[in-house]
Amino acid sequence: MKNYKFIVEYDGTKYKGWQKQGNTLQTIQGKIEEILKKMTHMPVEIHGSGRTDAGVHAKAQVGNFKCSTDKNDSEIFAYVNQYLPHDIRLLSLQECDMHFHSRLNAKSKVYSYTFWIGKPSVFHRNYVHSIPAMPDISKMKEACALLQGTHDFLGFSSLKKAKKSTIRTIFSIDIKQQDPQCLVLSFHGDGFLYNSVRILAGTLYEVGIGSKHLSDIQAVFTTKDRKFAGITLPPNGLTLESVFYS
Amino acid sequence: MKNYKFIVEYDGTKYKGWQKQGNTLQTIQGKIEEILKKMTHMPVEIHGSGRTDAGVHAKAQVGNFKCSTDKNDSEIFAYVNQYLPHDIRLLSLQECDMHFHSRLNAKSKVYSYTFWIGKPSVFHRNYVHSIPAMPDISKMKEACALLQGTHDFLGFSSLKKAKKSTIRTIFSIDIKQQDPQCLVLSFHGDGFLYNSVRILAGTLYEVGIGSKHLSDIQAVFTTKDRKFAGITLPPNGLTLESVFYS
Repeated sequence: MKNYKFIVEYDGTKYKGWQKQGNTLQTIQGKIEEILKKMTHMPVEIHGSGRTDAGVHAKAQVGNFKCSTDKNDSEIFAYVNQYLPHDIRLLSLQECDMHFHSRLNAKSKVYSYTFWIGKPSVFHRNYVHSIPAMPDISKMKEACALLQGTHDFLGFSSLKKAKKSTIRTIFSIDIKQQDPQCLVLSFHGDGFLYNSVRILAGTLYEVGIGSKHLSDIQAVFTTKDRKFAGITLPPNGLTLESVFYS
Repeated sequence: MKNYKFIVEYDGTKYKGWQKQGNTLQTIQGKIEEILKKMTHMPVEIHGSGRTDAGVHAKAQVGNFKCSTDKNDSEIFAYVNQYLPHDIRLLSLQECDMHFHSRLNAKSKVYSYTFWIGKPSVFHRNYVHSIPAMPDISKMKEACALLQGTHDFLGFSSLKKAKKSTIRTIFSIDIKQQDPQCLVLSFHGDGFLYNSVRILAGTLYEVGIGSKHLSDIQAVFTTKDRKFAGITLPPNGLTLESVFYS
């Protein structure tokens, strides 16, 4: 039995997210596990650095799995890619330390959320969220300053109750206007709660159009109440960009 | 009865090309005509500036159609876009001169062909053609110089015989290395024969990797024999960028 670490990219448009759900094969986890089962003739469970929701993309999701096979790393890599659908692709695969766990060992992650001003082209539609006009970026930057740092992010999540700690650290939130029609927010943090990036991006957007204010952000932290935060933006604008390990 | 000019963009990945084929609705023309029929309760025939093959994309294909309706331009525009699938979208629609014909009046067109060095990401895979290494661009530019101008392009087409003139003028072929992994060829000409851009791009690519030479290009023009030209590249790298009218 060996442990393998892999990096995978996917266009999440057609999938019900990362995590296998009952019989539903239309998940990233389900697709990869199906192929590993075919390869090893044994059920294989894969772990991801975190779940991504339906419609969310990844440029470099990290996962791991344990299995026994007489194939070497590059043979496993080629085998899996050969059977993966065209919108999921392994970027790398190597044997790793038996103790490596892609979720438990992850130190931080970067997610991006991309806005498109006006109607996006048919070529971009699945990867951006369309908004009518450019929001006020300087206001959004003031809000970023409040969000950065270590806080209880429960109010910025879709969790009803939390059994585990909801304290997380956001190292940085960058706002980049890539061209006149494209605005990208990048969130680098040690972890994000359920729907948290979509709610943080929604809150920043609402601050940028004036329907939320800096005081609302303070209220979310003080009350931990979801109602003070902004809308949960749709999944298609969201991409898991990278996962860091020590 | 009025005549309407429209500009349409489409991701050609899922379609059998522009032109309606018998009962096959899975064409761009078929999709638009179906909606115009629903709108007017009459069959409506649309004309495109030219056919694009299965898998070929368009950022600004131009078309026109005649019909009778009590809707104004912006109502027709909204109606059609409302029913179009998400990978086809009208960019504009206006009433035009009754004599306007999108194919017969087109003066010139620009097509791009995009190469990706190495394996493209799952996000680009439908819009680029993957090649193993960057070809020799300076050699390709020498070949462009030979291809530009007015020639009989029969040997650079998939036409078996030609009933009409196969003489066309290529005003320019531009080669742009957009980033270390991306090479874009842009062809501006007064018209292109069947498969011509894909064969021209294939020939330029083969010159760039040394499997074709400038003498082969001269041989195609002299003999009009397809066998001296390069391969027909796959459709996914090809995009109709714009159509010009006087």
